[in-house]
Amino acid sequence: MPEQRDAGAGSPLQMVDLIRKMRDGNPLDDGEIGFIVDGAAKESIPIEQLSAWLMAAWMNGLSIHETRALAIAMRDSGEKLDSSHLGKPAVDKHSTGGVGDKTSFLVAPLAAACGVAVPMISGRALGHTGGTLDKLDAIPGFRSALSLAEFESVVRKCGVAIVSQTPTLVPADRVLYALRDRTGTVEDPGLICASILSKKLAAGLRALVLDVKTGSGAFLRKREDAEFLAALMVATAESAGTRTVALMTDMSQPLGRTAGNWIEIAECVELLRGGVPRDNENLRELSLLLAGWMIHLGGQAPTPELGYLAAAGALADGTGFKVFLEMIDAQGGDVSVFDDLKAAHKPKATIVLESWETGYVSQMDTMELGWAVQRLGAGRVKAGEPVDPNAGMEFHARLGARVEKGEPFVTLYATNGSMLAEPVARIKGAVRFSEEAPKKVPLVSRIFTRETAESYLRDAVR
Amino acid sequence: MPEQRDAGAGSPLQMVDLIRKMRDGNPLDDGEIGFIVDGAAKESIPIEQLSAWLMAAWMNGLSIHETRALAIAMRDSGEKLDSSHLGKPAVDKHSTGGVGDKTSFLVAPLAAACGVAVPMISGRALGHTGGTLDKLDAIPGFRSALSLAEFESVVRKCGVAIVSQTPTLVPADRVLYALRDRTGTVEDPGLICASILSKKLAAGLRALVLDVKTGSGAFLRKREDAEFLAALMVATAESAGTRTVALMTDMSQPLGRTAGNWIEIAECVELLRGGVPRDNENLRELSLLLAGWMIHLGGQAPTPELGYLAAAGALADGTGFKVFLEMIDAQGGDVSVFDDLKAAHKPKATIVLESWETGYVSQMDTMELGWAVQRLGAGRVKAGEPVDPNAGMEFHARLGARVEKGEPFVTLYATNGSMLAEPVARIKGAVRFSEEAPKKVPLVSRIFTRETAESYLRDAVR
Repeated sequence: MPEQRDAGAGSPLQMVDLIRKMRDGNPLDDGEIGFIVDGAAKESIPIEQLSAWLMAAWMNGLSIHETRALAIAMRDSGEKLDSSHLGKPAVDKHSTGGVGDKTSFLVAPLAAACGVAVPMISGRALGHTGGTLDKLDAIPGFRSALSLAEFESVVRKCGVAIVSQTPTLVPADRVLYALRDRTGTVEDPGLICASILSKKLAAGLRALVLDVKTGSGAFLRKREDAEFLAALMVATAESAGTRTVALMTDMSQPLGRTAGNWIEIAECVELLRGGVPRDNENLRELSLLLAGWMIHLGGQAPTPELGYLAAAGALADGTGFKVFLEMIDAQGGDVSVFDDLKAAHKPKATIVLESWETGYVSQMDTMELGWAVQRLGAGRVKAGEPVDPNAGMEFHARLGARVEKGEPFVTLYATNGSMLAEPVARIKGAVRFSEEAPKKVPLVSRIFTRETAESYLRDAVR
Repeated sequence: MPEQRDAGAGSPLQMVDLIRKMRDGNPLDDGEIGFIVDGAAKESIPIEQLSAWLMAAWMNGLSIHETRALAIAMRDSGEKLDSSHLGKPAVDKHSTGGVGDKTSFLVAPLAAACGVAVPMISGRALGHTGGTLDKLDAIPGFRSALSLAEFESVVRKCGVAIVSQTPTLVPADRVLYALRDRTGTVEDPGLICASILSKKLAAGLRALVLDVKTGSGAFLRKREDAEFLAALMVATAESAGTRTVALMTDMSQPLGRTAGNWIEIAECVELLRGGVPRDNENLRELSLLLAGWMIHLGGQAPTPELGYLAAAGALADGTGFKVFLEMIDAQGGDVSVFDDLKAAHKPKATIVLESWETGYVSQMDTMELGWAVQRLGAGRVKAGEPVDPNAGMEFHARLGARVEKGEPFVTLYATNGSMLAEPVARIKGAVRFSEEAPKKVPLVSRIFTRETAESYLRDAVR
């Protein structure tokens, strides 16, 4: 049992002492956070110590200062993209994830078409949310695993590239993220913020637009948690020198008409080709808003509203689609697949679920819908599992729509017929109908800029 | 960032879910605690998950119910001593550790001489406290690493054996203890209690006497923490079927006259031979009290007071010393070394520190004195380091003694002359003098039996 350590003066940093400090609620300074991050990246601190520190950080919460120090130390833990070679201001967008969230395929080429460079590092599906890279994998030949040099070269050529995290980029986050996943220490705002920002900031961004979801399909279900995270990310990224804004956006229903892999790509291609929105006005509108902010913060429009108009122009005149095709081609994708979007979709099993009630669609448990998409074969439970590019769902009615019993409500596409029953049951449990039209939920409920984020954090009683 | 798990029904226990439960302050049931302990013992749960769970347990605290489940599951995680073969009730003593705490060498043979079996599993020095096994190692030839069968055989023959933990005994504790040491999760009362009791209860004890230290040299410096731990251990062990009592005893100064390895053995041999106590009345008195309770709870005396008298008799008539010699011999030790206690002590460097003030010895930072002993070479900073059997300290004045400046105050024995300066400085910083005689601190301040422990825990606002 004897466990006190002799508090000798001037001794070098010991991880166990930093764990105790965190555990006891004493602040860690930048050097101490740097020591931990360096030890994680070099794997010189054993994982049991990192894990105990993560749990102490989760339970006591990281301060804003500690969060900033962690984000910056992680950003600097490996190679970085030197965005000064791109010739244009580097701007990116990050979403906290949702169901049917496919704005990347729209905002990235639209913003690039309007004069900014978009070096986008994305992830894969896990849990109830889809993954940008899994959707791109539905395009034959597409490669997301580029080296840093290839990544830079595609961005220079096309103005945009969407790639997976390279092994040399932010190694500390890879170690810490894997541990957080296994140790129940994922959901702390400071740890989430530092993890997201470290990867984004390692791309040398001038500006960053954050899309923080709220509502039934959001990662953070409590509105105040999502707001705190949004404000924290804006204040942290700004203090690290990147112009940043966060839009709090609605995830009380899937974004757009589809959720899956190929069908989400197809939905975006339809819009990029200048097609009239079909049950996906919210997808189009949100993409233009996000692109507008990217263009504005990247210095290519004096206001976000003028950025929105520029993005809308690039959508209307096809320059956005041109950039999209160039990027897919540069990353090895076969663009001829877009010639016939329907023909490229080859689900093994399809079923049309008809509305089981008459009334207004009044409520959706969007997270549950996300799980239904995953169970169709479109997502994965464990990292590394394969996904079915053809699985997914197409919604024929949105929140607030009036439906008649027996009308097509959702079309389900599965890897095989036996995988349809559970998702159907989940959908039936996840949707509510009402006799009166429900109140409309605004698409964007709040915007955090540096000033409003800092003021929010000052007021937040945490 | 997507991290929610689909809460599917009827899924087997997942460690990450148990970590979250602990983290969120939700109680774990016996089966869940058993799952964790089994995974620790079999090393089937990765150490990062055990570490995160330990930190969550440390920060939220284990409930009394969880502590009991943990102690019992750990006790049952490996081989156990079958005490029914011993022919006598098995009784043990455990001390939370201190400076100069050598009561084991007195209580074990005295209790054994009075009709109980004492299968004692002990530990080594770490930090500011000494270790029973390191002291025994100062006896040439003595072996503490016995197999379970040898252990049983020595106890059957001599009534007592003092051994180190075998690899097969309580494997879960070995894994968890090593992690606690590295992850800053040592000092939780529930974890401490379960760790101590699992090892003690694996020896199949009918009764257990706990010596919980308070005061400046105690592991738990706050009196209320020590009391809580004492009450928790008594209630937990009793509910696991072992008659248990805890004495809260004074560690505001070293126990007895010496602190070190060989010199502590020599001090005990002097007393066991029936020598008149010299500046170590507190050692003699505490040993008889503890042995008295062991004899009583082991059913060999109707009251602890009569147990005390029996132990005093075994001390006076030499039967205790006889048992001690038999045990040392049975464990391979050369008992001829006790013929000349002084000659067997061969320190490389000796210095007499004279009192630097005149007055009453009014206060000692006993933990600091323990560190001074360690720095002389008698202890270790890291597990596995060797210790010097000849290093240590002999105190010539106790708390409350009147001393004159220039009188011998402490004799220091070190591994070499260069190791004397720091301990001298530490001693000078650790002792206070006063003009008036200080108030006497009682040797035993409180006794917890089952009833008083349970009532204490009910009242404890934790």
